[in-house]
Amino acid sequence: MLSGLKRLLIGRPLKSNELCEQKLNKTKALAILSSDALSSVAYGPEQILLVLMTVGAAAFWYSIPIGVGVLILLLALILSYRQVIYAYPHGGGAYVVSKSNLGENAGLIAGGSLLVDYILTVAVSISAGTDAITSAFPVLHPYHVLISCLLVVFITVLNLRGITESASILAYPVYLFVLALFILIGTGLYQIASGAVPDHLHAPVGTPVAGITLFLLLRAFASGSSALTGVEAISNAIPNFREPAPRNASRTLAAMGVLLALLFAGIVYLGYYYGIVPSEKETVVSQIASTAFGRGILYYFVQATTAMILVLAANTGYSAFPLLAVNLAKDKYISRMFTVRGDRLGYSNGIISLAILSIILIIVFEGRTEQLIPLYAVGVFIPFTLAQTGMMVKWLREKPGGWTARFIVNLIGAVITFGVLIVFFVTKFAQVWSVLVFLPLIVIMFHRIKKHYDAVGEQLRITNCERAPRAHGNIVIVPVAGITRVVENSLNYAKSLQPEQLIAVYVAFEREQEKQFEEKWNKWQPDVRLVTLHSQYRSIVQPLTKFIDTIEHKANELNYRVTVVIPQFIPKKRWHNALHNQSSLLIRARLLYRKDIIVTTVPFHLKK
Amino acid sequence: MLSGLKRLLIGRPLKSNELCEQKLNKTKALAILSSDALSSVAYGPEQILLVLMTVGAAAFWYSIPIGVGVLILLLALILSYRQVIYAYPHGGGAYVVSKSNLGENAGLIAGGSLLVDYILTVAVSISAGTDAITSAFPVLHPYHVLISCLLVVFITVLNLRGITESASILAYPVYLFVLALFILIGTGLYQIASGAVPDHLHAPVGTPVAGITLFLLLRAFASGSSALTGVEAISNAIPNFREPAPRNASRTLAAMGVLLALLFAGIVYLGYYYGIVPSEKETVVSQIASTAFGRGILYYFVQATTAMILVLAANTGYSAFPLLAVNLAKDKYISRMFTVRGDRLGYSNGIISLAILSIILIIVFEGRTEQLIPLYAVGVFIPFTLAQTGMMVKWLREKPGGWTARFIVNLIGAVITFGVLIVFFVTKFAQVWSVLVFLPLIVIMFHRIKKHYDAVGEQLRITNCERAPRAHGNIVIVPVAGITRVVENSLNYAKSLQPEQLIAVYVAFEREQEKQFEEKWNKWQPDVRLVTLHSQYRSIVQPLTKFIDTIEHKANELNYRVTVVIPQFIPKKRWHNALHNQSSLLIRARLLYRKDIIVTTVPFHLKK
Repeated sequence: MLSGLKRLLIGRPLKSNELCEQKLNKTKALAILSSDALSSVAYGPEQILLVLMTVGAAAFWYSIPIGVGVLILLLALILSYRQVIYAYPHGGGAYVVSKSNLGENAGLIAGGSLLVDYILTVAVSISAGTDAITSAFPVLHPYHVLISCLLVVFITVLNLRGITESASILAYPVYLFVLALFILIGTGLYQIASGAVPDHLHAPVGTPVAGITLFLLLRAFASGSSALTGVEAISNAIPNFREPAPRNASRTLAAMGVLLALLFAGIVYLGYYYGIVPSEKETVVSQIASTAFGRGILYYFVQATTAMILVLAANTGYSAFPLLAVNLAKDKYISRMFTVRGDRLGYSNGIISLAILSIILIIVFEGRTEQLIPLYAVGVFIPFTLAQTGMMVKWLREKPGGWTARFIVNLIGAVITFGVLIVFFVTKFAQVWSVLVFLPLIVIMFHRIKKHYDAVGEQLRITNCERAPRAHGNIVIVPVAGITRVVENSLNYAKSLQPEQLIAVYVAFEREQEKQFEEKWNKWQPDVRLVTLHSQYRSIVQPLTKFIDTIEHKANELNYRVTVVIPQFIPKKRWHNALHNQSSLLIRARLLYRKDIIVTTVPFHLKK
Repeated sequence: MLSGLKRLLIGRPLKSNELCEQKLNKTKALAILSSDALSSVAYGPEQILLVLMTVGAAAFWYSIPIGVGVLILLLALILSYRQVIYAYPHGGGAYVVSKSNLGENAGLIAGGSLLVDYILTVAVSISAGTDAITSAFPVLHPYHVLISCLLVVFITVLNLRGITESASILAYPVYLFVLALFILIGTGLYQIASGAVPDHLHAPVGTPVAGITLFLLLRAFASGSSALTGVEAISNAIPNFREPAPRNASRTLAAMGVLLALLFAGIVYLGYYYGIVPSEKETVVSQIASTAFGRGILYYFVQATTAMILVLAANTGYSAFPLLAVNLAKDKYISRMFTVRGDRLGYSNGIISLAILSIILIIVFEGRTEQLIPLYAVGVFIPFTLAQTGMMVKWLREKPGGWTARFIVNLIGAVITFGVLIVFFVTKFAQVWSVLVFLPLIVIMFHRIKKHYDAVGEQLRITNCERAPRAHGNIVIVPVAGITRVVENSLNYAKSLQPEQLIAVYVAFEREQEKQFEEKWNKWQPDVRLVTLHSQYRSIVQPLTKFIDTIEHKANELNYRVTVVIPQFIPKKRWHNALHNQSSLLIRARLLYRKDIIVTTVPFHLKK
């Protein structure tokens, strides 16, 4: 039944050689990989105004120069990541770049922060999307966390089905969102140009404002740069592109940069011109749309597409997290199971882990995004900085033709992103300090896992000079619970192994029982030695383990192996298991984990 | 660590021969086994007034004749159960009595309803007790369900520690409650006698009331008889008494009957004389206490002991449920695991099941007792009726000296309890119909479980005439994942079994991999036949199962056994398991449950 449900949700398994068909063309890639970056427009401009509002509405004109600063930062990032794409066509982005140029620890810091960041991407985007939905339908508000979790499950299923299919579903909302915002910005600009908007709604640019400080402006700039989260997604996902992958990826990146710049600039400008004041109850985009259109069909179109793209932005995490996990797992820094492809050729373990972790975040933070956004932004700017620095080192080392120009591009990128990072830590320390605690812990975990894998590899390696010692014989122990067919069955098997010694063990709770059983046994199986153990505390496992200890000690001296043959009762129906005590499972688990003993399970299938 | 926690909570394990020390003397038994019945005084009189209130306060005088009716019912029950105790000194109460006199199904109906009833006892009493606590400290009100669950856990731990120890803790509150109510009733009666209470507070007995109907009076009587829940507890728990158990039990029953009658009569009378009107916000007992004492220390003493005894009433369920479960399990109607004594000699599985089920009830009903009380009362009166009828049949069959007197006692008991049952179904059908659905389902489940055990017994029995066929040889299959020490280890073991055929199986995901591995293998183990399977869908288990199918088919023809030797990797630390895929567990589970194949696990313990 479970496997039927899986089939229904995820589709038939795909053969390994069906992989090529799952690659993305540019149009779909733009939709899938840029929804995160584009959706940031829905909250980025608002973050700037929220900081400026602490001084007063007169300060809102600063959003224009701050917006220009964010656009410059965007340009620097796009240019630097364009170089990353060509230099590292196999993807991996910041992790690979930092690792190969700045060393292991830098790579692990970048990888660790990206890993956490993709989880935050999902949590933040889904929560913000749910906010948009529940704002439109206030009756759903009490079910906020539940809706968020269902959306995560929905996107998870889409991703488990495989990339291309999800792209077809996910591409439309992204383009509709872009269309909706273009209509909104176009209408707004036309209204302004035609003089339909009174110009006393905003203070002119350059108006002196009391109380404005550099600290505050930097804080506003840092907040605004949260609109740039997600621009690195394309450079991490190059292997998902059709060939020639680097060129396709680079063009997609450029297209995304242009779209993001236009939308961001438009929203910031309209917000300034309309004199929008951020409010808890209505988002800035919603206020702009209702000013431009009134609460008609176009307004709802903008709100609906905004909600959808925010939800879909989470999908970027689903494209990027599993690929990064594969890179880390191949280098043995996280569990090997992240390299396994699932039925539909996606890396299911990565997808499922991401889903679980983001659902936990959503539940713990009760879907409140404002606490998560600064953390999220810091998590993005750490790998930004490391990647740019790594590229600088690369150019310095390799010095290819025209390397100085490339070096300067990455130098500017590195300086700006590092600057933003410093600004974050200085102006929002209360919200981002935990990065300084968790990131080192994650890096330590990476190292410990790698150390374990290395140790295991060494222990498993077969060197020609030494062969594993072979045992001289076998002692077989059969725990018996009575005189039944199950016992007969496993005794027969034990005898067929022709062991040097065969011992049946019976655990009795009462003295009488013990004697009775010995008598019966001697009549039934006189040729098999029976040992009865008395259990004062009504436990079967403990006296058995103790007995096996002594046998093992003896066996070691003789260089014999010890095999325990456990009869296992297999009822016809699953629910019948509840009617039988599961001693055989307990015994098996205890013996295998504690001792160097071979455990053989002889099933006895009940026929009715 | 877990076992350390268990030790701390439950105490050191007890040896089986320490059982005798756990028996109860009369004083402790009275406290443990009658808290359920005595605590009913806290809500029984109130249930009568609640029904009468639907007509008007003038009808309250009817509580006096109704109370007399309940007392007569109590007398009949005590006398009949006294006879049950002597006739069935091994306990089991209604289940044993009905089964041995009225046949299997009557016994199962009685047993099933008692089983459910003990769960309801715990849920109702704990919820009512929590109500009393949260009424006293309204700040705790939002945590009602949490507090109830914690109280269940607390009582569960006490019971897992063993009966005597819990008795010492639990006896004081019961006696303090009795003391508190005696002081309350004494003070009340003194005030009435000394003329301190004005007599216009109540309508005189006999005042005509408009709108009163027989239906309503019967309904009030049925509600009031919920005060009698719990009187059967002693007859079920005779084996817990010190010798001579039946005599001690019978005296305890009589003492309980007297106490219950005095408290019930006192509360009903004071409630009537003070003209108490039941209210959602304050219980009747609380109103009486605050009228008699004012809100001083004596008032809080009454409230605190009421709360405590309600919580402890749940303990009756803990004494009775496991014993009944043992009786049912010995007769094979429920899972055998209920007969196993735990570390402290209590029937831990019964105790834990009861705790889990009652916590589920509390959570599902959000601790609202009013929905559960009628169900609870019906669940009690079904076995009451069956037990009395069973006793009648017993006297008729056996006809011991003076049997007619005994017959009449049980006849009266049977008629009255059956009458109450009918009244319940007629007047409260909306709340108790579910009994008619679930009780038959439970009886069907009992029969199915018994059928399964009988079928298993038959299949396991060894008859002298036929011996299990012995196999002529052994085919050993070793799934291998690479050329490592783990594989070498298990191959060595497989060879030592000297099988007729030894096959190593390798599952490859890619064609190249397949060839490479074959070449390496032939250099390493040229004498072991290697079969490589190609897995298109990246599953290891599926192709392996398919291959083993074909081998099994071949083996059946030759009368060979098939043994699969699985290498199992055992890391040094538990968390390392997450770093290795658990294929060996999957393979083992799949093979054991689907096929008649022997699975041998060869552990490979990592040293670092």
